[in-house]
Amino acid sequence: MSSFGRMFRISTFGESHCPGVGVVVDGVPPRMKLSAADIQGQLDRRRPGGNKLGTKRNEADQVQILSGIENGLTLGTPIGMLVNNKDQRPGDYGSMSQVPRPSHADYTYQSKYGIHAASGGGRSSARETIGRVAAGAIAEKYLSEQYGIEIVAWVSSVGNHATDNVNMDTISRTEVDGNDIRCPDLTAAEKMTAEVVAAREAKDSVGGIITCVCRNLPVGLGEPVFDRLEAKLAQAMLSLPATKGFEIGSGFAGTKMRGSQHNDPFVKKGANLGTSTNNSGGVQGGISNGEPVYFRVAFKPTATIGIEQKTVDFSGEETILEAKGRHDACVVPRAIPIVETMAALVIADLVMIQKMRN
Amino acid sequence: MSSFGRMFRISTFGESHCPGVGVVVDGVPPRMKLSAADIQGQLDRRRPGGNKLGTKRNEADQVQILSGIENGLTLGTPIGMLVNNKDQRPGDYGSMSQVPRPSHADYTYQSKYGIHAASGGGRSSARETIGRVAAGAIAEKYLSEQYGIEIVAWVSSVGNHATDNVNMDTISRTEVDGNDIRCPDLTAAEKMTAEVVAAREAKDSVGGIITCVCRNLPVGLGEPVFDRLEAKLAQAMLSLPATKGFEIGSGFAGTKMRGSQHNDPFVKKGANLGTSTNNSGGVQGGISNGEPVYFRVAFKPTATIGIEQKTVDFSGEETILEAKGRHDACVVPRAIPIVETMAALVIADLVMIQKMRN
Amino acid sequence: MSSFGRMFRISTFGESHCPGVGVVVDGVPPRMKLSAADIQGQLDRRRPGGNKLGTKRNEADQVQILSGIENGLTLGTPIGMLVNNKDQRPGDYGSMSQVPRPSHADYTYQSKYGIHAASGGGRSSARETIGRVAAGAIAEKYLSEQYGIEIVAWVSSVGNHATDNVNMDTISRTEVDGNDIRCPDLTAAEKMTAEVVAAREAKDSVGGIITCVCRNLPVGLGEPVFDRLEAKLAQAMLSLPATKGFEIGSGFAGTKMRGSQHNDPFVKKGANLGTSTNNSGGVQGGISNGEPVYFRVAFKPTATIGIEQKTVDFSGEETILEAKGRHDACVVPRAIPIVETMAALVIADLVMIQKMRN
Amino acid sequence: MSSFGRMFRISTFGESHCPGVGVVVDGVPPRMKLSAADIQGQLDRRRPGGNKLGTKRNEADQVQILSGIENGLTLGTPIGMLVNNKDQRPGDYGSMSQVPRPSHADYTYQSKYGIHAASGGGRSSARETIGRVAAGAIAEKYLSEQYGIEIVAWVSSVGNHATDNVNMDTISRTEVDGNDIRCPDLTAAEKMTAEVVAAREAKDSVGGIITCVCRNLPVGLGEPVFDRLEAKLAQAMLSLPATKGFEIGSGFAGTKMRGSQHNDPFVKKGANLGTSTNNSGGVQGGISNGEPVYFRVAFKPTATIGIEQKTVDFSGEETILEAKGRHDACVVPRAIPIVETMAALVIADLVMIQKMRN
Repeated sequence: MSSFGRMFRISTFGESHCPGVGVVVDGVPPRMKLSAADIQGQLDRRRPGGNKLGTKRNEADQVQILSGIENGLTLGTPIGMLVNNKDQRPGDYGSMSQVPRPSHADYTYQSKYGIHAASGGGRSSARETIGRVAAGAIAEKYLSEQYGIEIVAWVSSVGNHATDNVNMDTISRTEVDGNDIRCPDLTAAEKMTAEVVAAREAKDSVGGIITCVCRNLPVGLGEPVFDRLEAKLAQAMLSLPATKGFEIGSGFAGTKMRGSQHNDPFVKKGANLGTSTNNSGGVQGGISNGEPVYFRVAFKPTATIGIEQKTVDFSGEETILEAKGRHDACVVPRAIPIVETMAALVIADLVMIQKMRN
Repeated sequence: MSSFGRMFRISTFGESHCPGVGVVVDGVPPRMKLSAADIQGQLDRRRPGGNKLGTKRNEADQVQILSGIENGLTLGTPIGMLVNNKDQRPGDYGSMSQVPRPSHADYTYQSKYGIHAASGGGRSSARETIGRVAAGAIAEKYLSEQYGIEIVAWVSSVGNHATDNVNMDTISRTEVDGNDIRCPDLTAAEKMTAEVVAAREAKDSVGGIITCVCRNLPVGLGEPVFDRLEAKLAQAMLSLPATKGFEIGSGFAGTKMRGSQHNDPFVKKGANLGTSTNNSGGVQGGISNGEPVYFRVAFKPTATIGIEQKTVDFSGEETILEAKGRHDACVVPRAIPIVETMAALVIADLVMIQKMRN
Repeated sequence: MSSFGRMFRISTFGESHCPGVGVVVDGVPPRMKLSAADIQGQLDRRRPGGNKLGTKRNEADQVQILSGIENGLTLGTPIGMLVNNKDQRPGDYGSMSQVPRPSHADYTYQSKYGIHAASGGGRSSARETIGRVAAGAIAEKYLSEQYGIEIVAWVSSVGNHATDNVNMDTISRTEVDGNDIRCPDLTAAEKMTAEVVAAREAKDSVGGIITCVCRNLPVGLGEPVFDRLEAKLAQAMLSLPATKGFEIGSGFAGTKMRGSQHNDPFVKKGANLGTSTNNSGGVQGGISNGEPVYFRVAFKPTATIGIEQKTVDFSGEETILEAKGRHDACVVPRAIPIVETMAALVIADLVMIQKMRN
Repeated sequence: MSSFGRMFRISTFGESHCPGVGVVVDGVPPRMKLSAADIQGQLDRRRPGGNKLGTKRNEADQVQILSGIENGLTLGTPIGMLVNNKDQRPGDYGSMSQVPRPSHADYTYQSKYGIHAASGGGRSSARETIGRVAAGAIAEKYLSEQYGIEIVAWVSSVGNHATDNVNMDTISRTEVDGNDIRCPDLTAAEKMTAEVVAAREAKDSVGGIITCVCRNLPVGLGEPVFDRLEAKLAQAMLSLPATKGFEIGSGFAGTKMRGSQHNDPFVKKGANLGTSTNNSGGVQGGISNGEPVYFRVAFKPTATIGIEQKTVDFSGEETILEAKGRHDACVVPRAIPIVETMAALVIADLVMIQKMRN
């Protein structure tokens, strides 16, 4: 349903055009310093900016903390957070309500619930992720302060333009945010940007891939067998709108390797063991091994496009759909903080569970 | 932990070398005809055979139903099932207990729990999947009888040898089982087989990909937002030993497409709507749309190899590891029923949940 | 934690003196007519009135629906609800922050979390129940419309004054609300009222018992073995502040009976079976049998009293505590809608789960 | 369903007359010494003995540990346990299958599932509790070794014969087991025994109350708001067959007290605070306060009696039911270890959860 996590647990609510979207976060450790400012940063990174790649909507998205904090400290009780939906404009979508948009959720929601939000994407809208990001910011603050954990995502491909030229050990969010496409390889970034602009000018859209690295995880996170670290990351990432794939470490490319190449030999690293290669992606047997955890997430091209589409309405009558409204031609730049958020939520939950064994 | 599913819920137990492995299945509908024979089939498909590709272990793996059935009918109460571990031979693994095997779970389990099974893979062993497969067979029987749902997986690549030449609409398990490598494209199967044989002869191993299709799913399965159908499938697949990636529908390749190519236009299909293409993989907004659900799972090369590996022991001392015992040079043929099982468990759970809305 | 229910699931948030209290309700069936007015009724019944028995606080407690509804119909998505905390007055409690109030949660919260809300009861305040009541109102509306289920609670004792003279088959909320003490037996009500007034005049408090009946439950609600109907009701009731006991049907008195007296013989009732007596309280083997479900909940005397109390502060120094602020001398009249709410939440959840078997 | 606990989690299976009953225990801490002998003790206390009060069935009930242990140490993985059903004798119950036994679960199971175990109580049988007791023994061992926690239950009333003359601070299981009725007040025990014998000779049955004390709990156990310690205890106890009531601390009697009498003043006790009285029953705001936790559980008279009962069969036809087979005239002596088990399971789970905050 709309809850995620076992001990660090979030419950989100809100559609694209209701009074507000938000989240209840249960299991936040007590006595953490926390204010709205700690949360607003990632919300701002998620918000469509005024740049040439984003949409034109002006979403202030100021978060309000409703509970769980007193005198700037968490109480250990649930933290409720709310972001008002200021810019609703349901009129923009009115004409679409009789025609299920191709590769959108209109038809499946209608079939599942016997009703679907007449305006916008309802619960399947990317706007639902605001509650996640607000919760993820708390998780990240905790993980950073307690373990020095760093989570950084970047755009590693758009359409056919990809980069492998990013240093996972050092990449920072500042570098990622250095350009609108959020790809720290500037040569690749330029090609990616051109691709997005071309797609938008063609009233079309384009997909892409986000790579994310999580550094400084303690050894031992992940619960055999169904809540393996990579299994929870996979669920978390595939729960995001527009995602079609997940791979950790060597991923699909690893299937082409021999075991003798793929295995990560152990070496002594300080007081612990480490590995000299990291095809495993920081996870062995579903449990973090102390090496960086890295993974990739595939996003399909935005389903909402301005080009005319031949389709049928709910009654089966053929029709032509031409989307109006404001839409990103490529979602991956804005999805960066959302991917980081889901990683943080997974890790925070597994950290809490592992504390039981201490 | 070791439970999966919300309403059709399994809890597995058992290591590779304890008295037995098994499962408790809660939420099985009452009044289903069910006997051990219904379950044994998939267990037999999972078992290493005597063929040239499998291991030499003779695991009878006869399932015993402990509870939940009377006079051949389910009671609606939990079904306990047990498979004895007959062939334990802990001695084979003895020499390995001081050396964490590269890309195995020895080191991470030891770090997490302060102890690890001295013999075999313990809980991270593929033997743990027996309980899943036994439970999955019940799920499959239910889905087949109630909805005509068909779930078929096959090997779509081994190393660099792949096939796209399988008809998703008609492929059957009989066809898949037509050869040892379980690839219904015979030309590809031959190359794959040669690849596995070559790897084994080199005391090495090789990875591969399994593709799975689920046909005849009713529209409406999948729970927004965290329990989307593809999110639960991703978790399920990445919870399997040796998996490194998951993609649904167009997957990673879809990131290279434009929206106008990728979108699946709606068309009238009988009384309902369908789509003329299926890049979505049968899922829109996380909910099944009535088209076939298909996905791919990446398996890394088997970590246990006969080739000498330079690594360190638990104390950090350099050593050479040379695996003994019996191991598959490629896991994908045997993983076929396990992938099917996890798909069945996900779908059965979502079917139960969706029944609430009827 | 702060969530309750498996399929009809609520997550509450909010302390007594933060910006607001509220709830997220997941699993509400789609296409229900629902507006704030449907929810406000029970909130108003819960609110301290201006009568001689209640406290003087003016809590408007107007609920705002944040999500999950469009054009007056539920979408099947989570319903977020918020009630602002208008009257915070933290100053009233300031002097108490160094002295844990006897039989309050100050000491245990401080020990558990290393911090406690400096003002009011924080999360252990009765104000937390607002979110529950808002959610319960939705559950009740659903149960009433779909099954004709009626849930009515009343005060059956205050101190030593009790009544057994209430007809469970016909008692209505209108009758219950006929007097401030909410006891429909007017003779007993008068004595109870005098008892509360006497306690308050003595700057003291007094306990009481609430009896609740749930009529028209379908046969078959309740999940063996840990989620028996009476087990979930017991958890629900004991999760309410100030509760010390729960009994269903014959309860503790039933322990004094012989089996031949206590057993409820089956009789034909229309198309189904019923029982000629109802010592079972409508539940057999943890599952509803179609007879009225009734139970009793014990509430201790309010812990906050004006009388001087000799106690120690957090450092162990002896001190005298004299509560200021506004407090009910007896909680049971106001707890009536809260008991009903928790019963509704339990039943709604079990109804959803049982639908799986249809 | 059939699982209980969040982090120390059990899943039970088995009916009265299937091959076996058992449990999977997930979340057991690793590196605990554990053998079947640690578990057999409570199973033996639960087993009907050959004494004059128990039934005549010879149930060996030897537990077999199936998984989760290697070389006498827990691995941190799920522990599967099985007890075979040796003495099935379904014939004894054959005549009852067309007549739902009054105050048994036959009718409600049949209505809920459309099927019910034709022999014995099926899943509602007391035999289901074997799995719980096996799991509880592990929980108790852990709590005892880590915290010195002691859990002792005794029979505090049978029919009208009760005792308050038991010292909660010192009572031990050895004392409780000093007589067959398991009441350490010998004068009361004699009367209780006579009551049970009289009931049995009359082919009837009688109810009773069990009191349980849990000593040495650390401060801070219990999760606001729905998983309060007393709420989980209440659920746990009401999930036991034949229970009708639960009260903690002052319980229903506390409703008759004034707040000034009922409040437990704080006093300095060593380095911590304690209370000079314990009407709270060791719990404030749902969280343990370091004082002994004590509660009482009401058990109805055994439903199965030899006296003829006038009732109707499933079709509604009037009939006379005369139970054959072997049944306890009073369940409370045998329920002692079951009550202790459920308390241990609740406490172990809350201990694990509280460890997150350390």
